[in-house]
Amino acid sequence: MSSHHIVRDDQEPALIIANGAACTPELLGQLLEWSPFVIVLDSAIERVLELDIKIDVLLGDFDRGFDANYYKEKQYPLEIVHTPDQDKTDLEKAFDYLCERNFSAVNVVWATGKRADHTITNLTNIVRYRDKLKIVILDDHSKVFLLPRKFEKWYTANTPISLIPIGHVTGIHSENLFYPLQNDSLTIGYRTGSSNHVVQDGMVIIEHQQGDLLLMECMD
Amino acid sequence: MSSHHIVRDDQEPALIIANGAACTPELLGQLLEWSPFVIVLDSAIERVLELDIKIDVLLGDFDRGFDANYYKEKQYPLEIVHTPDQDKTDLEKAFDYLCERNFSAVNVVWATGKRADHTITNLTNIVRYRDKLKIVILDDHSKVFLLPRKFEKWYTANTPISLIPIGHVTGIHSENLFYPLQNDSLTIGYRTGSSNHVVQDGMVIIEHQQGDLLLMECMD
Repeated sequence: MSSHHIVRDDQEPALIIANGAACTPELLGQLLEWSPFVIVLDSAIERVLELDIKIDVLLGDFDRGFDANYYKEKQYPLEIVHTPDQDKTDLEKAFDYLCERNFSAVNVVWATGKRADHTITNLTNIVRYRDKLKIVILDDHSKVFLLPRKFEKWYTANTPISLIPIGHVTGIHSENLFYPLQNDSLTIGYRTGSSNHVVQDGMVIIEHQQGDLLLMECMD
Repeated sequence: MSSHHIVRDDQEPALIIANGAACTPELLGQLLEWSPFVIVLDSAIERVLELDIKIDVLLGDFDRGFDANYYKEKQYPLEIVHTPDQDKTDLEKAFDYLCERNFSAVNVVWATGKRADHTITNLTNIVRYRDKLKIVILDDHSKVFLLPRKFEKWYTANTPISLIPIGHVTGIHSENLFYPLQNDSLTIGYRTGSSNHVVQDGMVIIEHQQGDLLLMECMD
């Protein structure tokens, strides 16, 4: 077993570099600071290699003609994970891979931008991993994650907070948000909690009873 | 009543320029070719003015300090529509404005990219306008619209087609898609029809019984 396969209990979140729009080098640099385990999805490898980053896994269905050996040489040791299953996106396959490897948390970049179908699928499919993997999707304007039934976090006043229901979410209560929610329901497409913000420096509490609720911290 | 207020029966779709990521000048140029009625949302005006486009309406809550007269002089005649309602997004207010003016169709650009909360809200909120306004959201990689209960359109073989349910959609049938749907259900976050494609040159038929289903034509 190579040192690559030793997974620590107190591990850093892994990092997935997906195949949407690239983020700033600054954001990527912050996420790479503690040398996370890095998975690159499919043809994003071509853009990632230019950045001179150490990659651990290259994962994808490689359905557009692909020479794995070329990348193996460029990035030794590099694990190539071929995932031809067409019922899942490459991003879901990467989440599954990390679950199997007992990772508990992952940051994801380049998962938004470019194709709208990929963006909305990547953002919304994280709800399936509620009890399996703590997923945070980041881009230059956004930080997105699934809320547990009770969420508490310290924020500074005026931080923008959007609550986006993936489907129908009931029994929502909030504390310290400018537009408070009190036993409210939100429904995607019809009633969402976009563009709320924090009232004052301090804890924000958001509870919900049923459904999947994403929190998005976004800035222009 | 100024000539601005004459709305023809056979009118071209209006064009809304929202406040997300800019598209290519080529896409914008195509949409402007037939001199549509143009609405610009809020502070996007600063970026739009640089493009030397004739604007008909500037609409927004202008909550960041705003001198309407400055823009009126720059773009005479320009209608300024101040919409302080905080329960709706500027994009929804622009849709409402077009409904009141009896427009039947609108193309929307700059509605995606940048903030993930705005992107997902803009893409999904169009379902509310099912019987009111034919809305198409476009960016450099995507064309997005809400499907009627029965949709028929001629496509060339291999055109990528993604079906994204906004909530839960039942009774879906498809013809001429590579991954066929037969009395299938799709649920956002759990089972979507992303990354399908057209089998052969010809009509694609997609029917669904209940719920809101977006079609996305997307390309890398």
